[in-house]
Amino acid sequence: MEFKDIVMQRYATKKFDGRTIPDATIDELVDLVRFAPSAINLQPWKIRIITDQALKAELRPAAHDQEQITSCSHLLVFFADTDYEGLIGNVDALMQRQGIPDETREQVIGMAREYASRMSPEQRFTWSQAQTYLSAGNAFNGAKALGFDSCPMSGFDQAAFSRILRTPAHLVPVILCPVGYAADRPMKKMRFSRDAILV
Amino acid sequence: MEFKDIVMQRYATKKFDGRTIPDATIDELVDLVRFAPSAINLQPWKIRIITDQALKAELRPAAHDQEQITSCSHLLVFFADTDYEGLIGNVDALMQRQGIPDETREQVIGMAREYASRMSPEQRFTWSQAQTYLSAGNAFNGAKALGFDSCPMSGFDQAAFSRILRTPAHLVPVILCPVGYAADRPMKKMRFSRDAILV
Repeated sequence: MEFKDIVMQRYATKKFDGRTIPDATIDELVDLVRFAPSAINLQPWKIRIITDQALKAELRPAAHDQEQITSCSHLLVFFADTDYEGLIGNVDALMQRQGIPDETREQVIGMAREYASRMSPEQRFTWSQAQTYLSAGNAFNGAKALGFDSCPMSGFDQAAFSRILRTPAHLVPVILCPVGYAADRPMKKMRFSRDAILV
Repeated sequence: MEFKDIVMQRYATKKFDGRTIPDATIDELVDLVRFAPSAINLQPWKIRIITDQALKAELRPAAHDQEQITSCSHLLVFFADTDYEGLIGNVDALMQRQGIPDETREQVIGMAREYASRMSPEQRFTWSQAQTYLSAGNAFNGAKALGFDSCPMSGFDQAAFSRILRTPAHLVPVILCPVGYAADRPMKKMRFSRDAILV
């Protein structure tokens, strides 16, 4: 499937048909997310994948009671990870495992530490959230590429999601990606013209 | 080209070979960005496309003097648009032009106004930036899909870019996407394991 067709055929699916996506296909979707780019390769994102119907039902009121939360096959909750010390430590360990020369590794890690040291907690969250949206984009496009559908959902009660999912404070849920097979039809795509977005 | 191959072959190109991408192809790239999803379809992004070598040279010191700023064919600067009144007005006009029924349109616009009214200026910026990253993801993947290369750049002097490009205050430059034909080779992709990002 051409990328242009993915972009044009992807749409915010409001209703799924109840069929289950095979776990192996969800693994492929997660791999598409994993290989998204991020600044200094920090990969400041985590994902919780929810299939339990009771848990979906518990979360649904915190997402404006929208039915795609319960009718989806898998609900992917994307968290922005704000624990930069942990992330930098993990990148350091990853580079060691991959046999990156010490000099290169130390240069990258030093740059990451210096970058992180200049950021306030708010800036860390903002920055992690932005990178996480970049990775979530691969999930929305990836779902269509893999033959199913998704719905980007930014508007939900983040505090309620954190409480219900019992996630640690350094993980902030920032965008939802319910996936499944669409039981509705796309509306016509409406976008600003090329001229309107070029400045 | 399969989406999986796009994701795996895309890489942060540090050096371009100086060839120019045809303008019609850049238009296709912009269309891939335009049709990215955004909450309430607000599309809070703008793009400046720079080809002038003198201007690229003026910007380069504000991007850690990285040579992809000057060796690229086109430099796309992504701005987060924080003028919600303007954006909502534009969506309203777009829906009218597309012949959306008044009732539906007023419902969407009312929801957007209510959503925006609850946000502080900082939240507006943070939210616009996140959506803009989602659209920029289509540029990074789209470049590879269209047969050329790109480099995601989050680390640069935003104030200097705003000053040099003389952009209004409600547009904040948040990510750069230089594009061109690579003159370097990708490093091995290193990512956290699937287990490490699932929580």
